[in-house]
Amino acid sequence: MENSKHPIGIVAADAPPKTKSSNYPEPFYSRMNKREKRPLGDLFNLTNYGVNLTRLAPEGVSALRHAHSRQDEFVYILQGEPTLVTNAGETMLRPGMCAGFKAGTGDGHHLINRSDAVAIYLEAGSRQPDDLTTCSDVDMMSANADGRFRRKDGTPYPQP
Amino acid sequence: MENSKHPIGIVAADAPPKTKSSNYPEPFYSRMNKREKRPLGDLFNLTNYGVNLTRLAPEGVSALRHAHSRQDEFVYILQGEPTLVTNAGETMLRPGMCAGFKAGTGDGHHLINRSDAVAIYLEAGSRQPDDLTTCSDVDMMSANADGRFRRKDGTPYPQP
Repeated sequence: MENSKHPIGIVAADAPPKTKSSNYPEPFYSRMNKREKRPLGDLFNLTNYGVNLTRLAPEGVSALRHAHSRQDEFVYILQGEPTLVTNAGETMLRPGMCAGFKAGTGDGHHLINRSDAVAIYLEAGSRQPDDLTTCSDVDMMSANADGRFRRKDGTPYPQP
Repeated sequence: MENSKHPIGIVAADAPPKTKSSNYPEPFYSRMNKREKRPLGDLFNLTNYGVNLTRLAPEGVSALRHAHSRQDEFVYILQGEPTLVTNAGETMLRPGMCAGFKAGTGDGHHLINRSDAVAIYLEAGSRQPDDLTTCSDVDMMSANADGRFRRKDGTPYPQP
């Protein structure tokens, strides 16, 4: 039931996790050490969007709070109670809940696991080569075009 | 915690279902009457891809078996044991399993619920305006450009 290119179907939790918890430069990289992402879409050669199974240990965060210029994002909670932070404030999510983040609104979002239990969710994001990511609460932005992280005045952070 | 444009987070199962079970012409429309889709991404104004919470009653099918030219698709099983059918044959999926369908391979796919229990899954699909859908087992294809269903010789089916 396998073909030569990719599996037919997989147990998502068995997918290999990313070896590096993020591409952020320090001091932001270390903040991601309670997050683990298992890329799922890539295993099936999908390119138009990515899908990850992501696990946040207690105190883990999904990312620095950020907004995308072109990339739509979506999350669906499978386990635990992560808190969604947007410009509107904080909203606790539960299993079976979902949220979407339309590109271009400027409203930054991320999930924080403020609970004592692991949170697990699916996340999907489209892959626009001209996307710009702007962090809401720290002085950093990045462009898909070159993958570099910069201060908002354009000064690059050191490459990690 | 709500803004004027869309909700912050929702219970996916509370999202309103599509009122029409499919856009297929007969005799294919009637085959979709055990499928119910709740669009999720649309509720958050996402446009780059769609995400649905889809429910298949016993004997329900996700779609006619088909392949896309440009649209990547992904499913994650939340409940039940739908059977995935591809050119490789049949694979039973279980909760926590996922599968992806890369555009352009020509390998048609769909899910059939051969069990006695409801199956529920998340499905995501990118939205290329130039996508062509080709059915694997029946004489039908369609183009996103005009939304019309045609026989493979180009003859349009009657508009439903």
